[in-house]
Amino acid sequence: MSAMRPFKELMDFETAKKTIMENTREISVTEKVPVREAEGRVLAATVKAPLDVPGFRRAAMDGYAVVAEDTFGAARTDPKHLAMKGKIFAGKKPEDKVVSGSCIQIATGAPMPEGADAVVMVEETSVEGDDVSIYKPVYPGANVSEQDSDIQKGTEVLYAGVLLTPPRIGVLAALGFESVEVYSRPKVMVFPTGDEVVPPGTKLQYGKVYDINSYTLTSLLQASGAEVKVMEITGDSREELKGSIERASEYDYAVFSGGSSVGERDLIFEVVAELGTLLFHGIALKPGKPTICGIVGNTMVFGMPGYPTSCLTNAYVLLLPSVRKMARLPMEPRTGKAVLSTNITSTIGRHQIYTVRVEDGVAYPAFKESGAITSMSFASGYIEISANTEYLEEGAEVVIYYF
Amino acid sequence: MSAMRPFKELMDFETAKKTIMENTREISVTEKVPVREAEGRVLAATVKAPLDVPGFRRAAMDGYAVVAEDTFGAARTDPKHLAMKGKIFAGKKPEDKVVSGSCIQIATGAPMPEGADAVVMVEETSVEGDDVSIYKPVYPGANVSEQDSDIQKGTEVLYAGVLLTPPRIGVLAALGFESVEVYSRPKVMVFPTGDEVVPPGTKLQYGKVYDINSYTLTSLLQASGAEVKVMEITGDSREELKGSIERASEYDYAVFSGGSSVGERDLIFEVVAELGTLLFHGIALKPGKPTICGIVGNTMVFGMPGYPTSCLTNAYVLLLPSVRKMARLPMEPRTGKAVLSTNITSTIGRHQIYTVRVEDGVAYPAFKESGAITSMSFASGYIEISANTEYLEEGAEVVIYYF
Repeated sequence: MSAMRPFKELMDFETAKKTIMENTREISVTEKVPVREAEGRVLAATVKAPLDVPGFRRAAMDGYAVVAEDTFGAARTDPKHLAMKGKIFAGKKPEDKVVSGSCIQIATGAPMPEGADAVVMVEETSVEGDDVSIYKPVYPGANVSEQDSDIQKGTEVLYAGVLLTPPRIGVLAALGFESVEVYSRPKVMVFPTGDEVVPPGTKLQYGKVYDINSYTLTSLLQASGAEVKVMEITGDSREELKGSIERASEYDYAVFSGGSSVGERDLIFEVVAELGTLLFHGIALKPGKPTICGIVGNTMVFGMPGYPTSCLTNAYVLLLPSVRKMARLPMEPRTGKAVLSTNITSTIGRHQIYTVRVEDGVAYPAFKESGAITSMSFASGYIEISANTEYLEEGAEVVIYYF
Repeated sequence: MSAMRPFKELMDFETAKKTIMENTREISVTEKVPVREAEGRVLAATVKAPLDVPGFRRAAMDGYAVVAEDTFGAARTDPKHLAMKGKIFAGKKPEDKVVSGSCIQIATGAPMPEGADAVVMVEETSVEGDDVSIYKPVYPGANVSEQDSDIQKGTEVLYAGVLLTPPRIGVLAALGFESVEVYSRPKVMVFPTGDEVVPPGTKLQYGKVYDINSYTLTSLLQASGAEVKVMEITGDSREELKGSIERASEYDYAVFSGGSSVGERDLIFEVVAELGTLLFHGIALKPGKPTICGIVGNTMVFGMPGYPTSCLTNAYVLLLPSVRKMARLPMEPRTGKAVLSTNITSTIGRHQIYTVRVEDGVAYPAFKESGAITSMSFASGYIEISANTEYLEEGAEVVIYYF
């Protein structure tokens, strides 16, 4: 049994984050999903329009399809008169033609009849029997959507790598696609570790605590486009850890919650170094010093601190950006600005993640103690205090990263 | 067959939005969901802690459990010496006691042994056999988490109505909850309407277009916490519309995409007025004039414009806030600021939703024509131009509402 070892060298926060990001590959596996379920996914192949949209010339307004020239000189006091020859509804092929002196009533979206080159809006007309009075002239092409005015067949309308927002889902539907090729979600295997950890719903014995970290990690990662599988709570012996990393070999991430501190049974970093490459062990970060990161095969291995707040803040600042990069999702945490309610002192040499509660533009400290999950639950988000900042003054403007 | 009627009176945008919001009730139905799937849901009942967290006094650091007084006066050059009496691992009940002159090795999270009142961090010690050198004094209570230091049994830790974020999921797990009572999601029934509309995946006949609106609405609403059921495309005869509204009677919303313009077959507003209360028909809004809203029984009925961009922008500015209010979700669209790349003129008397593409803090117009779904797919979001604004100048700062 080896003795407890203190951290030898802490990596600074920026270097740790850069190391993680440089070692994060973007996902290349793709899958087909129904367009109806594709919101929030990332398009894997550029989409070329297989058809024109609209596929025909159509009315852009309710009104009358006319020969524009017939309306020239029309005025409220001196309307032009046209003979109504029929009606065209949306979805129907027009049978009649418009010739000079006549018009056809037409609904928005209905195909334009032959002979007509404009639509007079219903608001600019009145009708008595078949006699339509036109109160305002229209130019040729007025209130008409030409075939392919939205999308021209053959055009590249959506590029590989774009996020599928509701408008882009609309483009796919407009082109008749039922399914679409998207990048697969990163697959994360989460291992709650530690002999003191038991699952919620069971009875708590003396000295035991409920598993918090697999819950916070799962909800955070799922909300950011990852597919998460949570394993049963395991001990953190060398053999158990090796087995866990092996089980995660088909996954993009193996995330251990707990077990990366300097306790003599905290062997993750040794196991990672033995099986693959250890990127770092220990960061000049508060909270979250004992975080480790490494790569075994194709799997990124994260050892998160066991303390719930340390685990979760580290997930926000280190794990989440990596997962979002792998998922090819935009890197835009929801941020805002606020002014500090009080002076805050920080330790030179350690980057600090400081939770705050924001009310009416003022940021109040929410930090309690590093084990206290309640401190985060009352917080709106966090601010970052860089390693070379000793002191933030009351009233200083800070950037809030919202949970 | 009635003649086409122009809109008689348009409601101004702010009044329309206010009318919708005032008529939107907050959902009262609740359901139990697993804590693991509760992220993004809204808590329905205040949670009282059924136990202390932690449930025992524990070490907050790896190190040695000591009698603090024994360490007073310790220095790197003049360490205090203590006899190591054993080890305590996390999850185990300690068997030994600490008495003056002795210490016990302890792991973070492990229960404190009787007699000890502080933990000396491993970094401030060295060990040879059973002789532990202490290099720095600690005060009583140092590096110890008291029982209930995070959560005290009986405390209200989460209030009804809060959004379940990852930290709050953590609080529920910490207290041992496996499931949680949340408000149900608003249920929306979407009716794609129009004889010209056919589902993606089918062959397109002349004069037909693919159903875009049920796709954009579904993706937008699902992403905002609604449960959406899309019905088959229906015609928009009076009887079909009545049948549709009846089918939606158990739903919170019936949303018709298309069929609310002034075309003579656009009867939704008549049917709503007949079966319930019509709140408005026609808004001084561009695009989106023909939007209608009413209430039939317990169902809010929205008639959206048929044009895809009009339908979707109206969903962003009118339908979405209503659904989020009903779901009790925070009303925080993702916004940002940018400066206009060009002058924009707008129509006095009509509130305008103007799509823009934002690059490097500059907002470029993305608008093409009101039927053009591609214009929205290339846009980052939109700006709002109020009804009494005629002109926005190049370089003006505007608020961007991101898609």
